[in-house]
Amino acid sequence: MIHKTQHMKKILFIAIAFLFLKNGFSQSEDSITIKKISDEILTNGKAYDNLRYLTKQIGGRLSGSSQMVKSEKWGVGVMKESGADKAWLQECMVPHWVRGGIDKATCYYGGDPKFVKSLDVLALGNSEGTKNKELRARVVLVNSFEELEKKKDSLKGKIVFYNYKFNPTYVQTFRSYGEASTYRGSGPGRAAKYGAVAVIVRSMSHSVDNNPHTGATRYDSAYAKIPALAVGLRDADWLSKKIEENRIISLTIKTNAHFLPDTIGHNVIGELTGSEYPNEIITIGGHLDSWDPAEGAHDDGAGCVQTMEILRAFKAIGYKPKRTIRFVLFANEENGLRGGNKYADEAKAKNEKHIFALESDAGGFTPRAFGFTMSEEQFQKVLLWKPLIAPYGCSEFNRGGGGADIGPLRRAFPTTALGGLSPDSQRYFDIHHARNDVFENVNKRELELGAVNMAALIYLIDKYGL
Amino acid sequence: MIHKTQHMKKILFIAIAFLFLKNGFSQSEDSITIKKISDEILTNGKAYDNLRYLTKQIGGRLSGSSQMVKSEKWGVGVMKESGADKAWLQECMVPHWVRGGIDKATCYYGGDPKFVKSLDVLALGNSEGTKNKELRARVVLVNSFEELEKKKDSLKGKIVFYNYKFNPTYVQTFRSYGEASTYRGSGPGRAAKYGAVAVIVRSMSHSVDNNPHTGATRYDSAYAKIPALAVGLRDADWLSKKIEENRIISLTIKTNAHFLPDTIGHNVIGELTGSEYPNEIITIGGHLDSWDPAEGAHDDGAGCVQTMEILRAFKAIGYKPKRTIRFVLFANEENGLRGGNKYADEAKAKNEKHIFALESDAGGFTPRAFGFTMSEEQFQKVLLWKPLIAPYGCSEFNRGGGGADIGPLRRAFPTTALGGLSPDSQRYFDIHHARNDVFENVNKRELELGAVNMAALIYLIDKYGL
Repeated sequence: MIHKTQHMKKILFIAIAFLFLKNGFSQSEDSITIKKISDEILTNGKAYDNLRYLTKQIGGRLSGSSQMVKSEKWGVGVMKESGADKAWLQECMVPHWVRGGIDKATCYYGGDPKFVKSLDVLALGNSEGTKNKELRARVVLVNSFEELEKKKDSLKGKIVFYNYKFNPTYVQTFRSYGEASTYRGSGPGRAAKYGAVAVIVRSMSHSVDNNPHTGATRYDSAYAKIPALAVGLRDADWLSKKIEENRIISLTIKTNAHFLPDTIGHNVIGELTGSEYPNEIITIGGHLDSWDPAEGAHDDGAGCVQTMEILRAFKAIGYKPKRTIRFVLFANEENGLRGGNKYADEAKAKNEKHIFALESDAGGFTPRAFGFTMSEEQFQKVLLWKPLIAPYGCSEFNRGGGGADIGPLRRAFPTTALGGLSPDSQRYFDIHHARNDVFENVNKRELELGAVNMAALIYLIDKYGL
Repeated sequence: MIHKTQHMKKILFIAIAFLFLKNGFSQSEDSITIKKISDEILTNGKAYDNLRYLTKQIGGRLSGSSQMVKSEKWGVGVMKESGADKAWLQECMVPHWVRGGIDKATCYYGGDPKFVKSLDVLALGNSEGTKNKELRARVVLVNSFEELEKKKDSLKGKIVFYNYKFNPTYVQTFRSYGEASTYRGSGPGRAAKYGAVAVIVRSMSHSVDNNPHTGATRYDSAYAKIPALAVGLRDADWLSKKIEENRIISLTIKTNAHFLPDTIGHNVIGELTGSEYPNEIITIGGHLDSWDPAEGAHDDGAGCVQTMEILRAFKAIGYKPKRTIRFVLFANEENGLRGGNKYADEAKAKNEKHIFALESDAGGFTPRAFGFTMSEEQFQKVLLWKPLIAPYGCSEFNRGGGGADIGPLRRAFPTTALGGLSPDSQRYFDIHHARNDVFENVNKRELELGAVNMAALIYLIDKYGL
């Protein structure tokens, strides 16, 4: 008995020592490789220069625009320069919504013709405008959907002003956005149901400026597609104050927003072919399209240039992946998700094996966390790598997360694990979908550190599998 | 034996249950109070508006300047408005260094008079200028102190150009700064030792622009006080390239930097007097002085307005501290530390009991960590509070840390524990001591979250002691 126990102890000791040594060695090798990747990106990084080109030479890249076409061509070129074994365009039809001119809203208050104020507005993406004609109607203020329901009998022929406020008390700003953005998404449909002729929506932001923030809306097909605009926060505060003062308020709005026929767009794909398991595919991506009033610098030029930076850094340090890594700039995330759907559909049709997909679509800010949608077993495995990645910024690994473009992949293959980069989120909704989402508001090192953290994670998943 | 063990188990169980209940209750009460503080600051915060006033209406506040005087008066007013039981000015003599005009450096290269380029420079703080006369000499490039020593025999009558590069591979930017700033601090003295007539120093930064970054230097009293200027990064790169091309380079520099006699400055102090232990003092602070070419927004207007915001928030939610809390805007951190020294000297003279001091002087960015200089026992106690604070941003509690202004307090009282707020540091050295340290580069929520985390920590230390 004693003998047996001692024997077992000995075996256990050897096993632990072996695991320790193995793990110790490999952890040390991994931390050296990750440091090499980080040094390469922080010293010779091209993400910032690539972002400058994308934003300043090409600009906003809404689906169907000429800039979309230019950016796709540019993307393939950068994939090749960065060292992709292959780079190609994957065709998909995309919606072609256009603003069609300058959106206007003029407020008349108090009866006297001299009481007139222009509001800073932007038509919501996918909305139908006034066909460039003036639409004038009285305004009804609602601070929430509950208020909308209470006032439902007084909305016929009116313009509904949704003044739901972005909650400042959440530290996680995406939580505030999640709550507020339902007003942009379903507000027009719910107002149309009660006979409203248009809506204006308080921008989903806690910024200190007056820039309106656009973004896609979706109509309720049972009701009219009424014009819908986002209004800047200062103007929203001004307007709600005037209404609360019992002024008689009417608005004249004018927008030429409309759809043209669907057109051809593309996902831009670069690939490093795996040396050991070429059939196991890992995807990294961001989306190439962006809203028209700005340059799409944080949303999501950042994710695109980070994606290509990882490719460049792997080649620069001579890392040869075991598995096939696909670097993807997705088409049409903002107002259709056709690129993400196409990528998943084709993967399904070809019966590909997708083990993991990672997206960066929350801005080029200092990385803080990864969120994972995967099995508990996979999550426990990934958690073991946290000490290797935390020194570079992502010190939190959370359950849940991914990205809009890679979501369809998990719907196509329920075993494909997903990850999403979560950078610091305090500044994101200052610029999100607004005209100040420009290159100047991106910091070089913050952008690069996002790429460092993603590259480290991809390196580990490539090396050890999931 | 069995009976005794059971008895002990029972006692242990009761003890654990008691601790659990006590701790459970108190943690829940604490998390409610901290949420109340956070909601107050994120909803009704005045830090951002106060910072706007300090930066835009007063501006840069170097010791001895008229803006210093204005800002002290303003500080006392805000302390009172924010609800201090007492607010006063604590007098201290401060150095009065002035730039005395526009600093200039003109580079002549290659012999031909048409090869002339103006460099963007700023005299280093506390440096002696050329008395507004032109000083012209040949330039010797050194990339490090090692190179300086190698070239020591060729420096007589020359201008030494320190081109030591800010290390981009450190994720913690303060580490890069620590290494680079020795060239600003002791570079002039070491060059003067070998007969150099002036130095220009590559700015301590990884920014993408050409702004020079000033900051204090200190001469070696054994050698001449030679003129010393910081130069922007693009110009530094250009100059080193020209020198490496073997061009004959001479520089004409002109600066009127000089000291005037010491003058009277003040620490601004607000106090909430403790209800139970009024003799136990907790200090929170930042420094009110700032370099002259900018507005001192991040460095350290942010720390000042955060300090006063904590006072305001405590009063707003009706929190009555057990211990005395002092809110201090320190004088003269940048080029003398006379305020911090005065505060400690007076505390010592009055034999006050200082249990803890906390400083915010690393910019108004998203808070990420606290650093603590305290006993191991105290650190273990503080660590228990981490789960209460981490949801607001400071998810790392590190050993080591404090701040320049509170350092003298621990030298006066070795038992005084110190803490320092560590916000995200990626953008700090883009603006530090440069002309772009302005209000526009501070984000409202990032600034407020710093105050939230500090307030939570101070609340816990006040409630439970250290």
